[in-house]
Amino acid sequence: MIPAKGYAAFDPVQPLAPYDFERRDVGPHDVMLEILFCGVCHSDLHTVRSEWGGAMYPVVPGHEIVGRVVKVGDLVNKFEVGETAGVGCMVDSCRSCSSCSEGLEQYCEIGFTGTYNSPEPGLDTPTYGGYSNRIIVREEFVLKIREDQDLARVAPLLCAGITTYSPLRQWKVGTGHKLAVVGLGGLGHMAVKLAASMGAEVTVLSTSPDKEADAKSLGAHKFVVTKDAKALEEVRNSFDFIINTVSAKVSLDMYASLLRRDGTMILLGVPPEAPELHAATLIFGRRRIAGSLIGGIAETQEMLDYCAEHDILSDVEVIPIDSINEAYERMLKGDVKYRFVIDMSSL
Amino acid sequence: MIPAKGYAAFDPVQPLAPYDFERRDVGPHDVMLEILFCGVCHSDLHTVRSEWGGAMYPVVPGHEIVGRVVKVGDLVNKFEVGETAGVGCMVDSCRSCSSCSEGLEQYCEIGFTGTYNSPEPGLDTPTYGGYSNRIIVREEFVLKIREDQDLARVAPLLCAGITTYSPLRQWKVGTGHKLAVVGLGGLGHMAVKLAASMGAEVTVLSTSPDKEADAKSLGAHKFVVTKDAKALEEVRNSFDFIINTVSAKVSLDMYASLLRRDGTMILLGVPPEAPELHAATLIFGRRRIAGSLIGGIAETQEMLDYCAEHDILSDVEVIPIDSINEAYERMLKGDVKYRFVIDMSSL
Repeated sequence: MIPAKGYAAFDPVQPLAPYDFERRDVGPHDVMLEILFCGVCHSDLHTVRSEWGGAMYPVVPGHEIVGRVVKVGDLVNKFEVGETAGVGCMVDSCRSCSSCSEGLEQYCEIGFTGTYNSPEPGLDTPTYGGYSNRIIVREEFVLKIREDQDLARVAPLLCAGITTYSPLRQWKVGTGHKLAVVGLGGLGHMAVKLAASMGAEVTVLSTSPDKEADAKSLGAHKFVVTKDAKALEEVRNSFDFIINTVSAKVSLDMYASLLRRDGTMILLGVPPEAPELHAATLIFGRRRIAGSLIGGIAETQEMLDYCAEHDILSDVEVIPIDSINEAYERMLKGDVKYRFVIDMSSL
Repeated sequence: MIPAKGYAAFDPVQPLAPYDFERRDVGPHDVMLEILFCGVCHSDLHTVRSEWGGAMYPVVPGHEIVGRVVKVGDLVNKFEVGETAGVGCMVDSCRSCSSCSEGLEQYCEIGFTGTYNSPEPGLDTPTYGGYSNRIIVREEFVLKIREDQDLARVAPLLCAGITTYSPLRQWKVGTGHKLAVVGLGGLGHMAVKLAASMGAEVTVLSTSPDKEADAKSLGAHKFVVTKDAKALEEVRNSFDFIINTVSAKVSLDMYASLLRRDGTMILLGVPPEAPELHAATLIFGRRRIAGSLIGGIAETQEMLDYCAEHDILSDVEVIPIDSINEAYERMLKGDVKYRFVIDMSSL
């Protein structure tokens, strides 16, 4: 076993604290990364507070990982020591079901192994994530990262980036499409950048008029305050797509009514309480609501390459790891533009 | 004006009763039909009882109309006196918006003119539907019907038929697809026949085990009792499509969980109360929920021709018009296989 250290939650209520633990040895197909940066995703908070249930304490969160390859297994041929690499939300899957065979490991029919808080194959411990100094992952689940980038700003692409990129590709978003983004947080700000880069006309829908300048600086073409009934009426029946990143209970009917005929709202956030949906909202206008979960490994690599080529990075606030508990509190208030990223040299 | 007679509702609670009224003269683009048969749709009942609001009494319901052309306007070139013809849910639309230009008059951006209970362009009265002896409709909204068919069994195609045919075509349902139908009523029984004719493997999902033989005689390949947890578990993640015809409040999550990855549930019924929808149901499995409303005029003609060619007819119980109130009570109990059709010679 390999000694590792990080920060963990030991129960749903106490602050995260330093934690020494062990990771598996580097197997023949494994890559070991020294972690440089790890993004702070809202899922981390949901998991450590057991808001989705099933937390296996201690929980070492973190699934937006950028690091340096420090060791590779004997049979690894995709990576060499010294390269920059990344790990996202998944560290393994069955690799043989029809979803995995199609490169859609996120929909693995057996269930993928999450980067943290999943049972680790062959061990009695759960997987431990990126709030730590090192991680060992099968090479198939490690991503190549071009090193001439601001790596702290690359980290959030591993979850927030792919979660928004995948549905944009799935639904072939591009020039001529009008697309709205609901929720200007970690996911939302990436949706704005990515959709704009693909040629869509992007509108940010927000309850708060204060966000207009920020939205436009991210690349949004238009901004609509959803509490302004007149402004909302003007965009009714107008969007080809709505990327809904909100994980609070908001009205599906209100947003869906802004879709034009054959328009699609893609849900990315999981509210704790289910909102209602009137069938008439979909029937009159032949509208659609769809879901999308992160993205497959091949598509994640495609997204990283696309972002490197188009100079798309997350907007981040870099923090030392001992600020993580404060960062959680600020994240809960939406007080971050737009992602906290832990500089792991602070560990 | 032209004298007409039919059956009307005069308020939300009294039984329908005979009604003498007037229809507009036959204009240059109009076709006058002597009505032979009119199907009884659940929408008729919702409207006369003002359950959707907005009933303009007296209401003469009926939008599954088959009749004989008895007069045509000077500029009509599509129909001749003596031909068999039909009228569905729409008698006019703006004919110029982008939806109408694409042949999707049901999504007319100004709003189509319903066959009954819509404001009639140029008159102070509402439109009156097919529970009557004659009707005058613009030729663009009149359908050609091959006369060598059992015309009573053709009538329900004008609403129940096109409402199920249109989404099957929209979503390109065919050989290799597994499709489930929820609700074995007027719409559901047509969905079974049409989807099976297009090559899909059709499963009927029902709360009642009694319906299995009927479902299979309609063409369903499989039957699942949704109250049987084990049977339900066996079809989880299995359907490419679910055609949900139920207009009661049922669990969207339960049905959507039966969709395979990238599967689509199409809602055709409008429950009075909106059910909840958990985003997670769509996100894990990249599932979709869509709506669909009847069909355009061109597609309705295509459907009628398709059904004539493939010998697809509705299963009906023909009634005299003075049984309409009893028929409504039986329809409310689901006591009809599968559509009442009024023989208008009984008027």
